[in-house]
Amino acid sequence: MGKPLIFVTNDDGSKAKGFNLLIEALRPFGRIVAVVPSEGRSGMSQAFTMSAPLFLNKIRDEEDVQIYECSGTPVDCVKLTFDYMFTDEKPVLNISGINHGSNAAVNVLYSGTMGAAIEASFYKIPTVGLSLCSHDADADFEAAIAFTKKLVPAVLAMEHKDIFCLNVNIPVARPDQIKGYKVCRQTRGYWREVFEKRYDPRGREYFWLTGSFVNWEPQAEDTDEWALANGYIAVVPVCVDMTNYEQCPFVERLLERL
Amino acid sequence: MGKPLIFVTNDDGSKAKGFNLLIEALRPFGRIVAVVPSEGRSGMSQAFTMSAPLFLNKIRDEEDVQIYECSGTPVDCVKLTFDYMFTDEKPVLNISGINHGSNAAVNVLYSGTMGAAIEASFYKIPTVGLSLCSHDADADFEAAIAFTKKLVPAVLAMEHKDIFCLNVNIPVARPDQIKGYKVCRQTRGYWREVFEKRYDPRGREYFWLTGSFVNWEPQAEDTDEWALANGYIAVVPVCVDMTNYEQCPFVERLLERL
Repeated sequence: MGKPLIFVTNDDGSKAKGFNLLIEALRPFGRIVAVVPSEGRSGMSQAFTMSAPLFLNKIRDEEDVQIYECSGTPVDCVKLTFDYMFTDEKPVLNISGINHGSNAAVNVLYSGTMGAAIEASFYKIPTVGLSLCSHDADADFEAAIAFTKKLVPAVLAMEHKDIFCLNVNIPVARPDQIKGYKVCRQTRGYWREVFEKRYDPRGREYFWLTGSFVNWEPQAEDTDEWALANGYIAVVPVCVDMTNYEQCPFVERLLERL
Repeated sequence: MGKPLIFVTNDDGSKAKGFNLLIEALRPFGRIVAVVPSEGRSGMSQAFTMSAPLFLNKIRDEEDVQIYECSGTPVDCVKLTFDYMFTDEKPVLNISGINHGSNAAVNVLYSGTMGAAIEASFYKIPTVGLSLCSHDADADFEAAIAFTKKLVPAVLAMEHKDIFCLNVNIPVARPDQIKGYKVCRQTRGYWREVFEKRYDPRGREYFWLTGSFVNWEPQAEDTDEWALANGYIAVVPVCVDMTNYEQCPFVERLLERL
């Protein structure tokens, strides 16, 4: 035993720069077991695999760092870890990331990084999803790593909550340009897609999805998008109860009319 | 124009019994355009396709019923429909289902049916996800269809809300055994998986995921699982803002310590 166990996962796979820098940053805090998808699985949300078997391969085996690849989704990685591998010992912390690309606003619903984080939080272990707002494979993670090294000991020292899952997004900036960190709410808005139509060599029509985020409240200073646009790290605690309590009375009246 | 446009999707594909019964039940209420995955896509959550092109094929073309198959996820079906097909006219109602299998409790987070419903609700059109609590391909949908026929005109007549998405789950029972319908909250709990380990012909280990839902509050009478277990149709309005507002002050104090 000795050092505490830290579980790491992501949706970009074992070769991603953000993942490898995270592993190095976490080494001083404990023994790391990482289980990540064997290929990039961005945009996989909370998807899991029902109709295919899962393969699991150990790809790195050091005393304090063990890394596995799983053939499934980010959520499959988490389920296999907790319900198959971690039968004797539970981790003290789960971290998903560091993702290449923002998971602020409605991205929390689509993100494989956050899907895995939410899944890991169900085991009542403090969980942090980390994302850098750049899709660049060689992005500058220095500010993200600096914040991670401050956040991790604070989360490890905090009093344990029932389900605790943070969605942390870091703007693209040098560490000395970051203005600080803000607890935010998820920005309202959605993705508007543009489908690029092409024809395959056999004349069949197909579509590539490309889109952009439409912010419905760009002026709202309590939102994660505002924080990021203004140089702050955005920290949103995630709720796994999707009930719209405000709408319940309206729905009550609707059902009375049936 | 004439009849109002109704959009239908699901995660079970065009051959599913629940889907085909839904189409027939909706005919009196408008023209139907359905876009469904070309194969079963259960458990796909809010996943969408970034790394592959999408194919779209019309498989049924009647005056009031048009059905398309899309090679992607349930969310891809919705995005292609709204951002590519429906450029001139928006539907008055979106319905996802009728799913074979419960999407109550935490299933709302994993469900392709509800992933599609949530996605469709972003277009500010009233949206209903419908699920029958049976995975049987030949399940008895009579109670589900009877409720759908009552719910649809009520939703069509209601005053328009900003984002409106219902998660409706119907217990397995004859219509006269259904006790009524209840507005509920999402039950707290999670899935506990059991991985069945096998070896392929080349000796490689692989895993099949099987699991069961663990209800953390089986006595709570305001939950969807309680309603279903007691013979009620469970109706949960879905919130797309995953911010955990209750935890914000706790996270504020946590960040102050960094």
